[in-house]
Amino acid sequence: MLIVGERINTSRKPIEPAVRARDAAFIKDEARRQRAAGAHYIDLNCGTLVEKEAESLVWLVQTVQEEEELPVCLDSPNPEAIRQALKVCKGKPLLNSITLEEKRYSALLPLIKEYGVPVVALTMDDQGLPATLDDRLRLAEQLVNGLTGAGVPLGNIYLDPLVRPVSTDPQAALTLTATIQRFRANWPEAHIICGLSNISYGYPLRQYLNQTFLVLALAAGLDAAILDPLDRRLMGLLHAARVLTGQDQFGQEYLAAYRAGRIE
Amino acid sequence: MLIVGERINTSRKPIEPAVRARDAAFIKDEARRQRAAGAHYIDLNCGTLVEKEAESLVWLVQTVQEEEELPVCLDSPNPEAIRQALKVCKGKPLLNSITLEEKRYSALLPLIKEYGVPVVALTMDDQGLPATLDDRLRLAEQLVNGLTGAGVPLGNIYLDPLVRPVSTDPQAALTLTATIQRFRANWPEAHIICGLSNISYGYPLRQYLNQTFLVLALAAGLDAAILDPLDRRLMGLLHAARVLTGQDQFGQEYLAAYRAGRIE
Repeated sequence: MLIVGERINTSRKPIEPAVRARDAAFIKDEARRQRAAGAHYIDLNCGTLVEKEAESLVWLVQTVQEEEELPVCLDSPNPEAIRQALKVCKGKPLLNSITLEEKRYSALLPLIKEYGVPVVALTMDDQGLPATLDDRLRLAEQLVNGLTGAGVPLGNIYLDPLVRPVSTDPQAALTLTATIQRFRANWPEAHIICGLSNISYGYPLRQYLNQTFLVLALAAGLDAAILDPLDRRLMGLLHAARVLTGQDQFGQEYLAAYRAGRIE
Repeated sequence: MLIVGERINTSRKPIEPAVRARDAAFIKDEARRQRAAGAHYIDLNCGTLVEKEAESLVWLVQTVQEEEELPVCLDSPNPEAIRQALKVCKGKPLLNSITLEEKRYSALLPLIKEYGVPVVALTMDDQGLPATLDDRLRLAEQLVNGLTGAGVPLGNIYLDPLVRPVSTDPQAALTLTATIQRFRANWPEAHIICGLSNISYGYPLRQYLNQTFLVLALAAGLDAAILDPLDRRLMGLLHAARVLTGQDQFGQEYLAAYRAGRIE
């Protein structure tokens, strides 16, 4: 399970002032702790800073790279911010994200090819978010065909089927797990990723819905997730789900996480 | 989801001395709290008392019935203890459990017919515990045919596919969820029940494996469980799983449990 640590996002309370103040020590500590907790990528999102997004993202990349060897995940809908951040990345960042929206697609595809980076591909287009499994399959097929046709290896594509809140669509989680199963069957070499927290929008005690959704999505074939690796309960359930679904035989990873104190 | 509250079991530390001392107040309090937390049956198990099991079970039934209107679950492999306890039950208890072991089957079937009670049916026979899905299906079919042939309605049968530890069988959880799906498809009117904690035998932090297993089993079709309803995290995940699998549309039960403080 590939984990993208979601904590460095200016929509989170303590992050925005730290980025505005260029508080490198704070940001480096957030990166370090996520790495220690098991993150494979450090997500960087400063979308709330709007007009200063590009320069802030560049600063975040440079700051995190001074501390950590982990690659970063450039999390922005803004191709210009992505373009500037790619220039200063040392390793291969994960690009988050491309969609079938025409402007975004045509601006990002050349960068993906030039830098040879893996990319999160959201199943949406200029008509907006998909509602049904069939919509998601059609959009995923367009994304896979377009990207592989342009030379992106299937193993560099992280399909994100886009989670809708169960509060507005009671079938949302069932649709998502069925979609994940189909993606997994259609494109075994591609990755499937999603964020968890949209599912619980509008509910109290959202962590229960997020945790349960992670278990069900992982069992359906999800192999990457954007989450907070410092959430020890969530990580405990993630590791348990890998044991129970036969992805961590004899619990070697579970026991290692336990011994390292990453779950408790 | 039918919940059998598992706390009144003499294998749990504080229960055995309370039963030995006939501490009615303590036992009544355990029953009351489980009812308030959402239990539909109060499990009564005094198997560790061996030679005093029957008289202890009778005392437990009488004691709990003084306090609670909830039916009890008579949890014993001992037909004689069950027989004596049935005589003092006011409502219809859940009988836990019959198996295909010849002596147990032939001793319990007449009691089930005489009292018209629902019964947990474990998929095991004199050859012991089943390992595979096919073993469980064969045993379940024998149980269903035998019981319904004797006049027990399908809706009174709680099939228990028997959970094995994932520490000794890495496929245990996958086998169980596949078995539950087949039971559900074959006998839509029957109930499917299991205990959770066997799955995690031999692991540290067993609660994560138990919680994850409940989510996966519930999504597969489990509609009853023997568990501790005072475990607020487990209950939070149970209610979340019902929301996400479309069994609690618009989260009415989830929100009711939240408002009542049963999850937190």
